[in-house]
Amino acid sequence: MAKYCFGIDVGGTTVKCGLFENDGTLVDKWEIVTRTENEGENILPDIATAVKSKMQEKGIAKKDVAGIGIGLPGPVRKGVVSVAVNLHWGEKDVEKELGELSGLPVSVGNDANVAALGELWKGGAEGKKNAIVVTLGTGVGGGIIIEGKLVEGSHGAGGEIGHAHVDDDIEIPCNCGNTGCLEQFASATGIARLAREELAAHPEEESAIRGIDKVTAKNVFDAYKEGDVLSARVVEKFAKYLGKALGAFAAVADPEVIVIGGGVSKAGDCLVDVVAKYYKVYAFSACKNTQIALARLGNDAGMYGSARLVLDK
Amino acid sequence: MAKYCFGIDVGGTTVKCGLFENDGTLVDKWEIVTRTENEGENILPDIATAVKSKMQEKGIAKKDVAGIGIGLPGPVRKGVVSVAVNLHWGEKDVEKELGELSGLPVSVGNDANVAALGELWKGGAEGKKNAIVVTLGTGVGGGIIIEGKLVEGSHGAGGEIGHAHVDDDIEIPCNCGNTGCLEQFASATGIARLAREELAAHPEEESAIRGIDKVTAKNVFDAYKEGDVLSARVVEKFAKYLGKALGAFAAVADPEVIVIGGGVSKAGDCLVDVVAKYYKVYAFSACKNTQIALARLGNDAGMYGSARLVLDK
Repeated sequence: MAKYCFGIDVGGTTVKCGLFENDGTLVDKWEIVTRTENEGENILPDIATAVKSKMQEKGIAKKDVAGIGIGLPGPVRKGVVSVAVNLHWGEKDVEKELGELSGLPVSVGNDANVAALGELWKGGAEGKKNAIVVTLGTGVGGGIIIEGKLVEGSHGAGGEIGHAHVDDDIEIPCNCGNTGCLEQFASATGIARLAREELAAHPEEESAIRGIDKVTAKNVFDAYKEGDVLSARVVEKFAKYLGKALGAFAAVADPEVIVIGGGVSKAGDCLVDVVAKYYKVYAFSACKNTQIALARLGNDAGMYGSARLVLDK
Repeated sequence: MAKYCFGIDVGGTTVKCGLFENDGTLVDKWEIVTRTENEGENILPDIATAVKSKMQEKGIAKKDVAGIGIGLPGPVRKGVVSVAVNLHWGEKDVEKELGELSGLPVSVGNDANVAALGELWKGGAEGKKNAIVVTLGTGVGGGIIIEGKLVEGSHGAGGEIGHAHVDDDIEIPCNCGNTGCLEQFASATGIARLAREELAAHPEEESAIRGIDKVTAKNVFDAYKEGDVLSARVVEKFAKYLGKALGAFAAVADPEVIVIGGGVSKAGDCLVDVVAKYYKVYAFSACKNTQIALARLGNDAGMYGSARLVLDK
């Protein structure tokens, strides 16, 4: 039985690498630069080199490594990413290419999906088998886990919950081309926009977030915690969109727990409380008491989940 | 290897029974009355008797029967239904009770869920592994199938998509206690209400459905096919709600096919066309071309799916 596996989380600027024991113990973690030039041709060779160097450094033989799991920012289906804009990649058979480069078995997943799997393994959904993980960052990502397995989807778009339609009135288009996506209201970017709109709609109202040069979701939540009335309205608006959408997702997947991660989740318990308030209103009766929890692994979730992919294979 | 299995679909008035060969060939089907008196105490004994009689009639030995699959109108989790109002049941361990009564292995599922599984096995989603099946009847039911397996959910509420919140303005409550559920707009009942509202809002407008005593969804679709303008507005309204909601569900499960069944689906291809039109607008880019198809098994879907449950066990 192999004792180790690697979990690799590929972002547009850095690649997070983790060496794990197969029980989920993180032995070592480090980062390398994501070299996106020349259509990102160096990314996979760099990863293979990083893995081999670490094995050499630690004196780990090939037979002791179960494989490499890798999370990528794009739709993944059966080991192939169809496009990864941030890596300057078109379609790429990552399972095959990285397998040949490294000589190890490779498992490939979408980055938001594997982050969800990480939270299920060692984070906010630890010990659960059914979970929805929603990641509130620059965008809104997600991962759906049913009976312990990630929902990859037939186009690699399982858990793309940031692009569920939630609003008919907004006229600004989403990055995806549609208009009215959850991401436009529940991402850090969306919350900042809601704040700017609320400030503009009430030009006379005093607020702790007025006058901040580029107001952020963090500014909004910080002010909310201090009792700022205008920020509270922004938070309630955000939470209503998210709680309502989570209710609809729960009517599909009926999870044991809904985990909220990403930068916005640093707001902490007050975020869970306000989202849960709206979730309870809109969720189907059988799902109203579903636990809502904070993610626990932060930026390491993708690394953990990628490693877990290897073991699930 | 056992050659046969039974698929039983329990409704509030009749129990549909099917004897299948394990390749999905329907050998015989018949119905018995659902005796709901005395808290439905006779229902399971009646089913056990029906199964035994059929085995005797056909000369089938116990060893040749893989088991009994049974679909029930209520939330099911691990063989136990938590409540089935139409059968006058509270919580009941159906797997255990029917197993003891029949002496055969029993598999239990929710009726809408098993109907979805039936459509996957031998109906509109035949040959697919990932599907959303939505049943438009008196209410709206559903079943989600991921990699060939039904999503039961952690409270037996997987696929309860009729109770996704889709509207903030309606004031009439849904049967579930919430307000604004998909079921209120996309069920036969919901379509009839939309029609009554449209008639009342345009009292001067001529329409083929005006003056009908109790206008039904069928009346609306029949008139729509004949070019009735008012009915077309009702159909478009219904289709927008449903297409939009299916788009959001696809962002969770990313199915290969969405199958529409239930009484309303008898409207045929024109129903698929109008729902697909809105689905394409609201679905995430990767899912926009997901096939939308009609259910093919009609009222037999539950029977087929229940039988399939046995074989999946």
